[in-house]
Amino acid sequence: MRWSGLFIPTLREDPADAEAISHRLMLRGGFIRQLGAGIYSMLPLGFRVLRRVDAIVREEMERIGAQEFLLPALHPAELWKESGRWEEMGEAMFRLRDRKQAELCLGMTHEEVFTAIARDELRSYRQLPQIWYQIQTKFRDEARPKSGVLRGRQFTMKDSYSFDLDSAGADRSFDLHAEVYRRIFARCGLDVIEVEASSGAMGGSESVEFMAISDAGEDWVVTCSGCGYAANLEKAISAAAPIEDPEDTASPEKFATPGIHTIEELAQFPGGAPAERQIKTLAYVAEEALVLLLLRGDHELNEVKAIETLGTTNVRPGRPEEIREALGALPGSLGAVGVTQLPVYVDETLRGRRGMTTGANEDGFHLRHVDVERDLPSPRWADLRGAQAGDACSKCSKLLEVQKSIEVGHIFKLGVRYSESMGARVLDAAGKEVPIVMGSYGIGLERIMAAVIEAHHDKHGIRWPVSIAPFQVVVVSVNVKQAEQASRAEQIYDDLRKEGLDVLLDDRDERPGVKFKDADLVGIPYRVVLGPRALAKGNVELFERATSQTVEVSLDQIVAELKRRLG
Amino acid sequence: MRWSGLFIPTLREDPADAEAISHRLMLRGGFIRQLGAGIYSMLPLGFRVLRRVDAIVREEMERIGAQEFLLPALHPAELWKESGRWEEMGEAMFRLRDRKQAELCLGMTHEEVFTAIARDELRSYRQLPQIWYQIQTKFRDEARPKSGVLRGRQFTMKDSYSFDLDSAGADRSFDLHAEVYRRIFARCGLDVIEVEASSGAMGGSESVEFMAISDAGEDWVVTCSGCGYAANLEKAISAAAPIEDPEDTASPEKFATPGIHTIEELAQFPGGAPAERQIKTLAYVAEEALVLLLLRGDHELNEVKAIETLGTTNVRPGRPEEIREALGALPGSLGAVGVTQLPVYVDETLRGRRGMTTGANEDGFHLRHVDVERDLPSPRWADLRGAQAGDACSKCSKLLEVQKSIEVGHIFKLGVRYSESMGARVLDAAGKEVPIVMGSYGIGLERIMAAVIEAHHDKHGIRWPVSIAPFQVVVVSVNVKQAEQASRAEQIYDDLRKEGLDVLLDDRDERPGVKFKDADLVGIPYRVVLGPRALAKGNVELFERATSQTVEVSLDQIVAELKRRLG
Repeated sequence: MRWSGLFIPTLREDPADAEAISHRLMLRGGFIRQLGAGIYSMLPLGFRVLRRVDAIVREEMERIGAQEFLLPALHPAELWKESGRWEEMGEAMFRLRDRKQAELCLGMTHEEVFTAIARDELRSYRQLPQIWYQIQTKFRDEARPKSGVLRGRQFTMKDSYSFDLDSAGADRSFDLHAEVYRRIFARCGLDVIEVEASSGAMGGSESVEFMAISDAGEDWVVTCSGCGYAANLEKAISAAAPIEDPEDTASPEKFATPGIHTIEELAQFPGGAPAERQIKTLAYVAEEALVLLLLRGDHELNEVKAIETLGTTNVRPGRPEEIREALGALPGSLGAVGVTQLPVYVDETLRGRRGMTTGANEDGFHLRHVDVERDLPSPRWADLRGAQAGDACSKCSKLLEVQKSIEVGHIFKLGVRYSESMGARVLDAAGKEVPIVMGSYGIGLERIMAAVIEAHHDKHGIRWPVSIAPFQVVVVSVNVKQAEQASRAEQIYDDLRKEGLDVLLDDRDERPGVKFKDADLVGIPYRVVLGPRALAKGNVELFERATSQTVEVSLDQIVAELKRRLG
Repeated sequence: MRWSGLFIPTLREDPADAEAISHRLMLRGGFIRQLGAGIYSMLPLGFRVLRRVDAIVREEMERIGAQEFLLPALHPAELWKESGRWEEMGEAMFRLRDRKQAELCLGMTHEEVFTAIARDELRSYRQLPQIWYQIQTKFRDEARPKSGVLRGRQFTMKDSYSFDLDSAGADRSFDLHAEVYRRIFARCGLDVIEVEASSGAMGGSESVEFMAISDAGEDWVVTCSGCGYAANLEKAISAAAPIEDPEDTASPEKFATPGIHTIEELAQFPGGAPAERQIKTLAYVAEEALVLLLLRGDHELNEVKAIETLGTTNVRPGRPEEIREALGALPGSLGAVGVTQLPVYVDETLRGRRGMTTGANEDGFHLRHVDVERDLPSPRWADLRGAQAGDACSKCSKLLEVQKSIEVGHIFKLGVRYSESMGARVLDAAGKEVPIVMGSYGIGLERIMAAVIEAHHDKHGIRWPVSIAPFQVVVVSVNVKQAEQASRAEQIYDDLRKEGLDVLLDDRDERPGVKFKDADLVGIPYRVVLGPRALAKGNVELFERATSQTVEVSLDQIVAELKRRLG
């Protein structure tokens, strides 16, 4: 292709509102344009990269015998009501009504639709296993769309679903996917780590996320260099640093704390207590009933663990008025001493604590000398605390590392969560009806693009890996008006195309600096430059974007050299 | 691929609710399944065909230098308000609100989004022409989704948009598309005719539809075998058969017609009049104002012409109560004699008519002896009549033919309708700012699939053209348990694959009749059969689906023979 015939609207300046590097470079390189919050158009160069990723995903999926479908984005509400997720998905699901006022939604994921097909079409264990997939557009109404295509409201996903007779089969399908995912990321030039993750709204027993470590990410992962433990912070377990309790056997004593509402304020307050000697009392509403969640003052609640503890995703922080009605005080002065009318969940790190300070359920007052096991009427012990930097690994005691990361893939063992609720059953070899054991597996294609840019760029622009670059080679003559340069460039362009390489000819009548800058920005792995000095020696310059190294190669060797390098 | 590893849920029986042949065969062959009204899942076999069509479209678009984009399905309402189509699209557009209550819609077409990109990025005539396209999912809330994927509410479309400096350039882009479309349909094995069409909600000056003649279609086309005139019935012009008027100079006379409400009833009524001597009076509401549309009793209103005549798409039939309020009578007794308070549009075929009968604007009464030009206060002459079978060609007077057809493509000259309303301008060579002249062009991919099936099938199933068949060849052994048959089949399968042919091995342990029936149903162009009789002679049977011809070919020639036939 010729640059002059391609629409590549590069920008000289960084766009004002783009923070993530990948977002900036995709805008500047003319890969994408924004249409609305979290909604992006793929321009020709962006689409070329997307197609490369798409092709790699498809090849790898076919290797494990996965069969490609294409399912609708528009789903009848009934299907989601069957699985029970119509309510559960909340505001993240785009919902609409058609002209007959029938309720529809836009598919965020396709467990329901694939399960419905399996239910209608699979009858016997002889038809199993099946792995079904699609590369399709998903819609999620993100609360905070940001970072360009990293967190969009519409995006392309490869989602696959496995259907097995039993757990052993489902485990095999899961393992096959883990292997395929490793190959896909490796082929895209992306280093990932695999972490234990929360299954969230997907349900099921076990899930693994594939994470690319990057400051542009929004997920935190916890890793242990000692034993290799790795988990999403949402799910991570860790050992809190041990704590010594004072010899405090006094009874709880109320004291005035006017204007004090936070852990930090009470830590500073004369007669208060350091954060680790306070009890943090959080009032949440689970399934419309108020509950208290207690943590040590220096710990944070992990909402995923709270959801697991409470056994429902229908959880929200309590509103001030409902809290005051139940406890007689507002947040900032809450405590669980003497509370018998509400369930009180207490984090394990509070077990055995004495001499603690907590709210007195009276605005402007706290209690000191609290002995957790003595003074709380009926504590329900739970794991509520989020892992945090400074925690030790619960397996090997080494200090854990906490890093930001981008989730590029997520694989789930679903068990029978959908096949039970939607009635997808087959007859086993003994003629007995059993629910199909399922798995579901997702990769975000635009996320891969962005994560690769986060990992492969420099101050001049993107450094695409050859495998997913929009073009492998760009041929540039320093001066297109100079006849020999132009005709040699055409010749090399033709020769490279005949060899099946994906090559772009920069035929624009622009200064060489502009052309080099654009090539660097859009990130083409190899640049062949025809300039007067090298040409006088019968050579061209070959520039490698990844290493910034330039070598001279003779005109008659350049095609062979590129073939060699591009494998 | 092996049949045993592919999910092809064929059905023995015709599904109850599928009328169109293509719909029945796509369901029976396991190509699609319905998810909701007008919403279909593509199963693996259907997706394979869709990908073939997709590849042909892409190759042909690239031939004319078109550049591939991928635009969002989710559009902010603002964009459609800018072009003025937010209201115009009415109930056909799916609308929704996001969690912040912002208005969005699902893209039915992408003039707005592409024009917005052109507006933001194109500055100079030097950047023109551009042809931009995508192959993407569209959403339309059809009033009557039917016939499977022929009229779905979600479907795949190749839509392209041309941007030129002037009309001459735009005409070239239009002609390029017409040529590309001819090649695409030819390569897909589809005979089409090109007809003049109404531009409808797209706007613009001229449009051509590509129609596949088929009883499964919902469009009527008018063709003239004399001069080659061809048009969509919505748009067609024709000459009504001439009519003789009686020597009737009497004044209008009211007469009682109790219980008479229709043209037919009045034609039967003693003292009534034949249909062609009646005036049909239709009350419509255009932009909230009542108007009367008058036609000869044996003619039908063409709503597209009505829209053009009234200059707005905001047109609906009047409701009984508003009609009675304006005219004093209900539909069935309406007329325009003496009506001065409403605009009265009169079809040209009523010019000069005398001795006509019409409603008296009094329930149960009509008027006879009406002289149109004498008795209507201020007629606005218009072309309102739909062409119909029996009309003559207005160009060459030959009798017109009217046939049902499927619209598989539609190309539009948009002029500056979008660039003016949305401000997409460039500087021309003289430095003057001019609006970009646009075109838009669409092909429905699933429609092509269905139209091809309508054109290529027999009582046993589909007869796919090789170019878009899910597989080119199926290799079947009569008995997979017979070792020589099975190993020969494997060998041929491997050899064909090595030659790059797209081949399916039916390795199922089923009766040969079942396997042949399935192969016929799903429509694979060539079937290689390994059975005991032919094998004894060192031969296989080669069956061609399109012709139902079988020949014996020697084992060592079968690969060469198939290569020859598959070109």
